[in-house]
Amino acid sequence: MLQASWREELGWTAPSIDPLSSVSLHPCAQVLHYAVQCFEGMKCYKGKDGRLRLFRPDMNMDRFAHSADRLTLPQFDKVELLECIKELLRIERDWVPDEEGFSIYIRPLLIFVTHPFLGVCPTREAMLFVILSPVGPYFPSGLKPIKLYVETQNGRAFPGGVGDTKIGGNYAPTLLPQLNGTQLGCSQVLFVLQDGNPGGGLVGESSSMNVFFLIQQDGENRELELVTPPLDGLILPGITRDSVLTLARGFGNMKVSERPLRFNELEGAAENGRLLEVFGTGTACMVQPVMGLVMKDQTEIVVPFNNEAAEYWLAKPPGTAGLPHSSAGEPLSVCGRLTRALLDVQHGHVDSKCFDSTQAV
Amino acid sequence: MLQASWREELGWTAPSIDPLSSVSLHPCAQVLHYAVQCFEGMKCYKGKDGRLRLFRPDMNMDRFAHSADRLTLPQFDKVELLECIKELLRIERDWVPDEEGFSIYIRPLLIFVTHPFLGVCPTREAMLFVILSPVGPYFPSGLKPIKLYVETQNGRAFPGGVGDTKIGGNYAPTLLPQLNGTQLGCSQVLFVLQDGNPGGGLVGESSSMNVFFLIQQDGENRELELVTPPLDGLILPGITRDSVLTLARGFGNMKVSERPLRFNELEGAAENGRLLEVFGTGTACMVQPVMGLVMKDQTEIVVPFNNEAAEYWLAKPPGTAGLPHSSAGEPLSVCGRLTRALLDVQHGHVDSKCFDSTQAV
Repeated sequence: MLQASWREELGWTAPSIDPLSSVSLHPCAQVLHYAVQCFEGMKCYKGKDGRLRLFRPDMNMDRFAHSADRLTLPQFDKVELLECIKELLRIERDWVPDEEGFSIYIRPLLIFVTHPFLGVCPTREAMLFVILSPVGPYFPSGLKPIKLYVETQNGRAFPGGVGDTKIGGNYAPTLLPQLNGTQLGCSQVLFVLQDGNPGGGLVGESSSMNVFFLIQQDGENRELELVTPPLDGLILPGITRDSVLTLARGFGNMKVSERPLRFNELEGAAENGRLLEVFGTGTACMVQPVMGLVMKDQTEIVVPFNNEAAEYWLAKPPGTAGLPHSSAGEPLSVCGRLTRALLDVQHGHVDSKCFDSTQAV
Repeated sequence: MLQASWREELGWTAPSIDPLSSVSLHPCAQVLHYAVQCFEGMKCYKGKDGRLRLFRPDMNMDRFAHSADRLTLPQFDKVELLECIKELLRIERDWVPDEEGFSIYIRPLLIFVTHPFLGVCPTREAMLFVILSPVGPYFPSGLKPIKLYVETQNGRAFPGGVGDTKIGGNYAPTLLPQLNGTQLGCSQVLFVLQDGNPGGGLVGESSSMNVFFLIQQDGENRELELVTPPLDGLILPGITRDSVLTLARGFGNMKVSERPLRFNELEGAAENGRLLEVFGTGTACMVQPVMGLVMKDQTEIVVPFNNEAAEYWLAKPPGTAGLPHSSAGEPLSVCGRLTRALLDVQHGHVDSKCFDSTQAV
C-alpha cells in the first residue's frame, strides 16, 4: 500500500510504499465520526503487449481533488500522486492479470484523522492511502443482464447536495435501498428523485453506476437516441460514462444526449416497445446491461437484452468495434459494442486517440 | 472506553471497559470508505447532591437505534447499552465536574468495520465504542450570542434524504459552509433549503443545533410565538429541542409552534422589529443565543439580545425559572429563562416531572 500523511503546519510527508497493514486511529478521528473522507476507483490493465495501462487516470485525479476540496480536505499534487500510483503498480506488476476484462482495481482514499478533538472542525491532520486488488470481469462469461430496483422514496442526491463527489456519505444511505432491492431480485438500485415536478421523478444514477437508455424516438424516421442524465450536480461524473459518450458519438448511428430524463418518458417508451436497451457504466462494472426495472409494488418494466447481438460485438476482432459506421447488416447491441470498444482501448488493442490521457505505467 | 463488537454470525460480544486506546482497522474497513457509521451525543451532570444524572438518555438510545437501522447497521439492546454507559460513568465518576453548566460529554459510536472486502455491502462486522470527555459550558461567563451564516447554496438535508439521522455523512459536507461562515465572522451555519417554492427558502437547522425564533405576531394583541421547524425528516430530532418545547409550553406566556418557516417571514419580522430572539439548541451548546444572520453578500439581519434580561433569569434561585406564569414585571429573555430551567433539571435542582426519563446513574 502507498501512504502519506499531512499536517496543517507541515504539509505532506514523503510518501512510502509498505506492506498492507492495519490503520491505527485515535477513537476521536474525524473520519470515524463525521465521515470526512473521499476516495477514488480506477483500474490498471495489462495488454497483449505486456504493458500496463491506466485508463484516463487524470480524470480520477481531478475528481479526487474536487471531492477533497468540497470537504475541505488537503489538496495534493495530482501529477505526483499519479507518479506514486504508477510506482506502486510497477512494484506489484506481477499481480496485474493479463486476461482481457481482468485488471487491478486501485483505491485511493483520503481521510481526516485527528488531532484528538471531538468537535466538527476543519482538517488538521490527514492520511492518504492507495490499496490495490486484482479483479476479474463482473461476469466471466460475456454480459449478463441484471435488474434495477426503482427507488423513489430514499434519494441518493439532491440539488444543492454533494451527489457529484465521491465521498462516503453518498454511499452509506444506499445500503437500505440496496437491501430492499435485493429482496425483489434486483442487484442494483436506480434512484429516481421526486423533485415535485411532473413526469414521475428525475432519473439519476445507480449507487455505483451511471445509467444509459437507448430509446427509439416516436415519429417517422424512428431515430435512435442514447440518453443519460446530465452532469447537473446530482450524479457522479463517471469516467466510464464520459468514455461511453465519446465512443457512442463516434459510432455515428444514433443521437447521443446528456439531458434530464423523467421516469414517465421511460415508461411510455417501454409501453410502445421503444425502450431498446438500458445499461449502467462504472469503473467496477464497465458496461452492465439491464433487463428489468422493478417497482416497489413489484411491477416491472421489462427491458430487452439481445444476447446474440451482444456476443456478435464481443467476438469482433480487436480494434473494429469502435470504428464509425458499422456495416448495415450488423445487429444492434450498444452495450455489447461499447464493451468491446472499451476493452480495445483499455488493453491497448487500438490507439486511444479520443482518450488522450490513457497512460502507460 | 466502552467497547463491544458484532459479527453477523455471532451477534454481539460481551462489552468491556478498557483504557482509551487506538482503533486498529483493516484499510478496507467500510467505515473508512463508505461512511457506514452512526453516533450519539449525550451528557451526564453532577448535582449539588453529588449524584450523577443522565439527561433523557432513552431518547438518545432511540435515535441511535434509528440511525443504525437506516444504514443497516446491527441493532443492540437499548436498555443494556444504557446500563453499560452508566457503568462506565460510575467508573469515571471522579472526572464528572460538579460545577453548574459543566458535564461529561458521552459519545457512543457504531462503525461498520470489515470483513476485508472493498465493495459496498451489508454490514458483516461492526464495533461499538463509547468515549467520554469532561466539558465546560460553551461560554464560562453567561450566555454569549453568536452570528449564523445563512447558507442557501449548499444544503444539509433534503426531502427523501437522511437529515433526521445522526450519521457522519450529514456532517462532512457542512465543513465548507462552516469555513465560508467563519470568514464572515460567523460561528455556525443556518441552512436554508431552496426547495423551489416561494418564500426565500425553508429554514432548517444549524449543523450542530436546532434553531428557534421568537416572533411577535402582527395584529392587535401582538401575541408572542416561539417557532422551530417541524420534524419533517429534514432536521435532527434534537433532545434539547424537544425539552425546550416542553419547557416553553409550560411557561404559559407564548404560543409554541413546530411549523415550516420560510426565510422571507424572518426577514419581514426583523424589518418590523418583530423578530425578538433567535437561539440554537443542542446537547453540546444547550441554548445558544444568536445576534445576527449574515448573508453571503455580507448583509446582516441583526437580532436583539438582551443580556441584562438573560442574566436576570440565569441568576434566578434554582427551581424558579421553569415555573409557569412568571410575575408581570419580569424581563423577556426566553433563551435565558430556558437555560436556567434546563440547568435546574440537569443538575437536579428540581424534579423533572416533564422529563421522566432523566436518569440517575
